[in-house]
Amino acid sequence: MRDWGVPRNPTRDGAGEAPGAGEAAEGDMVVKAATLRSDGAAALEWVARYLEDVGSYPVSPDVAPGEIARRLPAKAPEHPEPFEEILADLDRVVMPGITHWQSPGFFAYFPSSSCPPAILGELVSAGLGVNGMLWATSPACTELEMVVLDWLVDLLGLPRHFSSQGTGGGVIQDSASSATLCAIVAARERSLAGGARLEQLRLYASSEAHSSFPKGAKVAGFAAEQLRTVPVRADFSMDPHALATMVHGDRAAGLAPCLALATSGSTSSMAFDPLASVGTVCQREGLWLHVDAAMAGSAAICPELRGFQEGIELADSYAFNPHKWLLTNFDCDCFYVKDRSALIEALSVTPEYLRNAATSSGAVVDYRDWQIPLGRRFRALKLWFVLRAYGAEGLRRHLRNHLALTAALAERLEGDERFVFCAPPALNLLCFAHVGGDEATEELLHDLNASRRVLLSHTVLAGRFTIRCSIGGTWTDEDHVDELWRLLDELAPPASGRRHPS
Amino acid sequence: MRDWGVPRNPTRDGAGEAPGAGEAAEGDMVVKAATLRSDGAAALEWVARYLEDVGSYPVSPDVAPGEIARRLPAKAPEHPEPFEEILADLDRVVMPGITHWQSPGFFAYFPSSSCPPAILGELVSAGLGVNGMLWATSPACTELEMVVLDWLVDLLGLPRHFSSQGTGGGVIQDSASSATLCAIVAARERSLAGGARLEQLRLYASSEAHSSFPKGAKVAGFAAEQLRTVPVRADFSMDPHALATMVHGDRAAGLAPCLALATSGSTSSMAFDPLASVGTVCQREGLWLHVDAAMAGSAAICPELRGFQEGIELADSYAFNPHKWLLTNFDCDCFYVKDRSALIEALSVTPEYLRNAATSSGAVVDYRDWQIPLGRRFRALKLWFVLRAYGAEGLRRHLRNHLALTAALAERLEGDERFVFCAPPALNLLCFAHVGGDEATEELLHDLNASRRVLLSHTVLAGRFTIRCSIGGTWTDEDHVDELWRLLDELAPPASGRRHPS
Repeated sequence: MRDWGVPRNPTRDGAGEAPGAGEAAEGDMVVKAATLRSDGAAALEWVARYLEDVGSYPVSPDVAPGEIARRLPAKAPEHPEPFEEILADLDRVVMPGITHWQSPGFFAYFPSSSCPPAILGELVSAGLGVNGMLWATSPACTELEMVVLDWLVDLLGLPRHFSSQGTGGGVIQDSASSATLCAIVAARERSLAGGARLEQLRLYASSEAHSSFPKGAKVAGFAAEQLRTVPVRADFSMDPHALATMVHGDRAAGLAPCLALATSGSTSSMAFDPLASVGTVCQREGLWLHVDAAMAGSAAICPELRGFQEGIELADSYAFNPHKWLLTNFDCDCFYVKDRSALIEALSVTPEYLRNAATSSGAVVDYRDWQIPLGRRFRALKLWFVLRAYGAEGLRRHLRNHLALTAALAERLEGDERFVFCAPPALNLLCFAHVGGDEATEELLHDLNASRRVLLSHTVLAGRFTIRCSIGGTWTDEDHVDELWRLLDELAPPASGRRHPS
Repeated sequence: MRDWGVPRNPTRDGAGEAPGAGEAAEGDMVVKAATLRSDGAAALEWVARYLEDVGSYPVSPDVAPGEIARRLPAKAPEHPEPFEEILADLDRVVMPGITHWQSPGFFAYFPSSSCPPAILGELVSAGLGVNGMLWATSPACTELEMVVLDWLVDLLGLPRHFSSQGTGGGVIQDSASSATLCAIVAARERSLAGGARLEQLRLYASSEAHSSFPKGAKVAGFAAEQLRTVPVRADFSMDPHALATMVHGDRAAGLAPCLALATSGSTSSMAFDPLASVGTVCQREGLWLHVDAAMAGSAAICPELRGFQEGIELADSYAFNPHKWLLTNFDCDCFYVKDRSALIEALSVTPEYLRNAATSSGAVVDYRDWQIPLGRRFRALKLWFVLRAYGAEGLRRHLRNHLALTAALAERLEGDERFVFCAPPALNLLCFAHVGGDEATEELLHDLNASRRVLLSHTVLAGRFTIRCSIGGTWTDEDHVDELWRLLDELAPPASGRRHPS
């Protein structure tokens, strides 16, 4: 064999550390497939016990920055270590630094959905280890995703044009952030193709839109002044008249309105932008309408909760996260477009090494053209597992239970003079404050979380420091919400500002 | 409770389908944690058997577009279905449409790394279900990632400034595509902060750079004319003199050279751009240098293969994929930056609801500011499991085995007058053609893949249709490469163009 230059491969008879090809037999593998049975049984038991016991752990850890890192060695091991030692270190080193998102006392941020079928879907997906970048690189990976996302169009009562049977289709993204970015890029390309210049484009969203909107716009090359913040009404929903006025003003100034993002269920307060009126403005003015329903979208599986979707047929794209409230492990954001060609034109780049007969035939969907990265895991499996293991009725029961728990806590808060709602309770989110003001509310939140029996987070609404209570944990039931209420009752000072006598 | 408007939550005594909160007890859960044991044992056995048998399946499926989708029902089930039925449908419906990336006969594209410890790392990560967007949302998720990525700096002989102990640090991205996008955005922001206008910026990469470079540039708002394609030398590596000339020319024309992407191990032919000379140009001219070593980077775990890293200390950012060749399931791209503040300034957007004491203290890393999405899985676990279960020596042995297998096949190809290399063999990739020309080569590739015992892919190098053979499967050993050679020998026509007599 010629000398091919650097880096040169070790040859079969090469000197030094390089082994011969004869060492390739499976008997020499450090880890064999069969170890999945023994090590796997241990890992599975670890996970099962974890989920059975998770309610007994402090919800949040008590560690200082750097404390977990210091418990780990400075270097990777030179020699293989037994799996039981790794699991032991998981308990000893890692677990003391875990915030238990699966705890039934976790009411912070938003739920991080998970359930046994979704966990096993991840396991099977990892076992198959396929890359679904192209239809041709694993047809079932693409087609199961298309079908399952079509199922959800039906289950949620979404417009038929979001189905793969029509002009559009759905795709699993890692997150609503990435869905927003894809929508912005598709809208931008549409505007540029129409003759506008990048710096003329303007994007619109309310002041309550998620931070992924300004982040996505920045990533997509928009300067801060190209983002318009639409004012909200008293319930924190977008004022569609203000949107119309801003769009008209920008157009009159020679600018090119490009996209509006409407939020169905804002992060801070679960506010719902009026899709029908926002959509009418967008349609009239030629804006791409993206609807971000990351948290709330799953609610539409219950027909009685679909009111917020009124006008959704005017959206060019739509995203919601089964990984928030539909029991499917992160990452699983469902992103739908009305016109798939707009998305594909914006995101398709085909080098020679990815060309193949199926793609050239035009008869298949290549999901790499529907997302930012090239590679993709087989994420549809976990969603398929969840939809089948629960059935639509099981999922509705799961969500309705959270809503009933939320309503019960809302009643208690409303009936107590110490608390005030900072936004209308909606779905599974309660935003409230202590009547004593920001300092009392902050102190209450601190004390609640310091109990480590519960974890809640905060926001600021209309200038007021606000406690957010999001009820959506897989294992959260009446007992846990009762315990939260007991803590609230015990820790909140009286309305006058003085503490209860102890 | 007041009427909070639409969407209204069902109340405890609400009519219709909404159940009372009393139904919240765990006894009512459709799926209980304990089912992980029974269903999990079945799923685990399914995966173990799959990996034991994967060599016996046809590597690629024989299905037409839409065939898998048609085997699935048009609607999601209304009622829960037992897990064994789901697993049975996995076999019946999904498996016939799977391309077996884990097959030892898979030599296409690039390896999709996987191994039992990585699979179990995914299982544990799914079980914990934490979101590591902020340090505060699960400190161990962030700190284990920092430590494991520091371990890799040491294991691969990377510059110390990529370590979290210095000015930089590493982070797990889903893919090298996303790492490239982050690098482009950080470089863009640095140039804009320096006073350049977006349309003045220019980006440089060779004609052999991965398609994620033009895609990332497009996503980041660059027009096609802002990308410069640097010519390559005979070995398909970037010509650094041509780069220097282009940069000078652009600067002379009033443009603002912003970033160069150098490739260590190109997708088509495993070409290595000369980092030292490319880096010198970048340093002198103030360009951000991003090095994309997605496929080849893992090789540096073997000290004798580190030649390609010469000059890496000049890189501002660097990415390689353990999910390609270091046994760690997709998604796992390791992205390093020399100056973490440049990345964070480009990607940080902090809304009120994510503010927290740890972030404000400045003492912690919040990885959401190191990536495009907000949310993130606990991906460091699988990498930690792999590094410990194999140890550095086990990983070196694994890679050296692939290299020896590649060298042995290269010798056979070289000793046969029917084959010609289209690029210098390097690491685990062989690029070859039939001497009879493109038609003979295409036909040979077709026949090889039609055997369904192996799967290889193609590219075009210097205008010649080229078969790519990438040897990196977890379960690929000497027998499988021998079988590939037997197929090549049998299916390739003689050098004159006539078939062997049958």
